[in-house]
Amino acid sequence: MRKIEHIGIAVKNLETSNLLFEKLFGAPAYKQEEVASEGVKTSFFMNGPNKIELLEATNPESPIAKFIDKKGEGIHHIAFDVKDIVSEMKRLKDEGFILLNEIPKKGADNKLVAFLHPKTTNGVLIELCQEID
Amino acid sequence: MRKIEHIGIAVKNLETSNLLFEKLFGAPAYKQEEVASEGVKTSFFMNGPNKIELLEATNPESPIAKFIDKKGEGIHHIAFDVKDIVSEMKRLKDEGFILLNEIPKKGADNKLVAFLHPKTTNGVLIELCQEID
Repeated sequence: MRKIEHIGIAVKNLETSNLLFEKLFGAPAYKQEEVASEGVKTSFFMNGPNKIELLEATNPESPIAKFIDKKGEGIHHIAFDVKDIVSEMKRLKDEGFILLNEIPKKGADNKLVAFLHPKTTNGVLIELCQEID
Repeated sequence: MRKIEHIGIAVKNLETSNLLFEKLFGAPAYKQEEVASEGVKTSFFMNGPNKIELLEATNPESPIAKFIDKKGEGIHHIAFDVKDIVSEMKRLKDEGFILLNEIPKKGADNKLVAFLHPKTTNGVLIELCQEID
């Protein structure tokens, strides 16, 4: 794990929250992207070497809709940048962490991603992400 | 705001969680520190340009004890590195954000810190921190 690639924040309304985070960072989102397979639309803000990803659910079955129903708006996950997601998944599995997906899947922002179960990580949903060349 | 300085994670038992995050990062905490004024003991892990701070409450009135009572273990706050905390606090107040402390206070890891109220930031507790020279 080389750095925090991004922090994912669950929001009810992407347009409203885009304005809020634009004020916070003093610069607008640099892109928006829908990930249909995850039932989310997202926007990304740069902050030096890191990013903030805002996520709005596009349907009631989306993990983001369920998260907001249960916990309200707020931080949803931390994503760490990894060089080789397959070897990092193997290393963490061998250390006793539980993977939510055994095979890397395509995420937003041109990434291969995998998630660790929060019950093995102090309640924190952790994403590993590797840039797709 | 120049980068994510650290992410703060509320934990019940610092020793147990230190071992867990050591496995996650493949390297141990580089320091531990108690902040008596906040009722916490903390440990820090490096991750490239960023840090992870684990926080355990040292008394039942600690904000971390209250957080865990209400929400369980998990991500407590995001801290952004700022060059000049006083001018950044003024800029954000002028933008409509609510500050939890009007004057910077001494935090862990040799920093001046200030917090933004989560009700103005999509449920996310945001810390500004400036390294003390």
